[in-house]
Amino acid sequence: MKLLEERILSDGKVLPGGILKVGSFLNQQIDTALLWEMAQELRRLYGGEGVNKILTIEASGIAIAAVTGYVFGCPMVFAKKSKTKNISGEVYAAEVESFTHGNTSTVVVSKDYLGPEDRVLIVDDFLATGAALVGLRALCEQAGAAVVGAGIAIEKVFQGGGNALRAQGMRIESLAKIAEMSDEGLTFCQ
Amino acid sequence: MKLLEERILSDGKVLPGGILKVGSFLNQQIDTALLWEMAQELRRLYGGEGVNKILTIEASGIAIAAVTGYVFGCPMVFAKKSKTKNISGEVYAAEVESFTHGNTSTVVVSKDYLGPEDRVLIVDDFLATGAALVGLRALCEQAGAAVVGAGIAIEKVFQGGGNALRAQGMRIESLAKIAEMSDEGLTFCQ
Repeated sequence: MKLLEERILSDGKVLPGGILKVGSFLNQQIDTALLWEMAQELRRLYGGEGVNKILTIEASGIAIAAVTGYVFGCPMVFAKKSKTKNISGEVYAAEVESFTHGNTSTVVVSKDYLGPEDRVLIVDDFLATGAALVGLRALCEQAGAAVVGAGIAIEKVFQGGGNALRAQGMRIESLAKIAEMSDEGLTFCQ
Repeated sequence: MKLLEERILSDGKVLPGGILKVGSFLNQQIDTALLWEMAQELRRLYGGEGVNKILTIEASGIAIAAVTGYVFGCPMVFAKKSKTKNISGEVYAAEVESFTHGNTSTVVVSKDYLGPEDRVLIVDDFLATGAALVGLRALCEQAGAAVVGAGIAIEKVFQGGGNALRAQGMRIESLAKIAEMSDEGLTFCQ
């Protein structure tokens, strides 16, 4: 998606350690008109798939998931990071390792909000190692929900998570795919 | 806002300890069409105030703030809950006490995303003791930004936070105002 790629080039910042900072337009401060265009692009890609639920993970995926849900005409659900290791029987739970924060957390979603009748589009701002996607997919599997695919704002292709999941047959559409990133800058996949 | 009040009556659940659970349509699972109508109502209320930034706090305020930002045609910013007590000089910081979680957290926003040029509408899903609003207002004061007012989905009027802030001159518009809540149910302010 040209609009997003151009924005990453103009306003994104590459930090040491493979971190791409997009806080000025996608995470912390969010360009809501850009969100809208991203949601429209996801509808173009997944509009024919009968999606009836958008699933994301708190916190930074919520904004894009909310607008995407509105554009798809369906509710959105966000998985919460659990503060306790004691998971009740009322939730589906999965482990997610965070690349950015260097820790592992348990993510949960109430059993009331995900079920066999759901055709789920998973939405998130970043895809790197794929840990969040694997966790969200596991929640859907526990619920018996169908995962139509994933819609990602920015994929760091060089971290391998996206292609590993594609090789398993998961459909993943990323609106900007970064092939390489270094202190000198970044290049997108052609 | 009739639509929201009716939804609270039909789908909200009153739990012991003054907790109103709206997880099926406002928090965790989110009715995105309802979000849209709430954002339209906030525009009706604040549309003439020159708002150029929506400010909220992670996580559950992000969805309504994102859609509200789109409807206002401006960016939205969310304050993050800091995991560390060591706050860098690059952020504005304030303390916020959580009624629901029974703890205090430091919320921060990058100095890059809030400044004297901003006319801020603070948006959140709940207003109870007002602690989150006080914290977000403090961030704006540190930034020299003008707080136009607050737009809240559900105010628990009986907890007093909203009226205490109104008495200080802050404009607060809540889309559903709960006067009383007990195990028998709840009543809205007339």
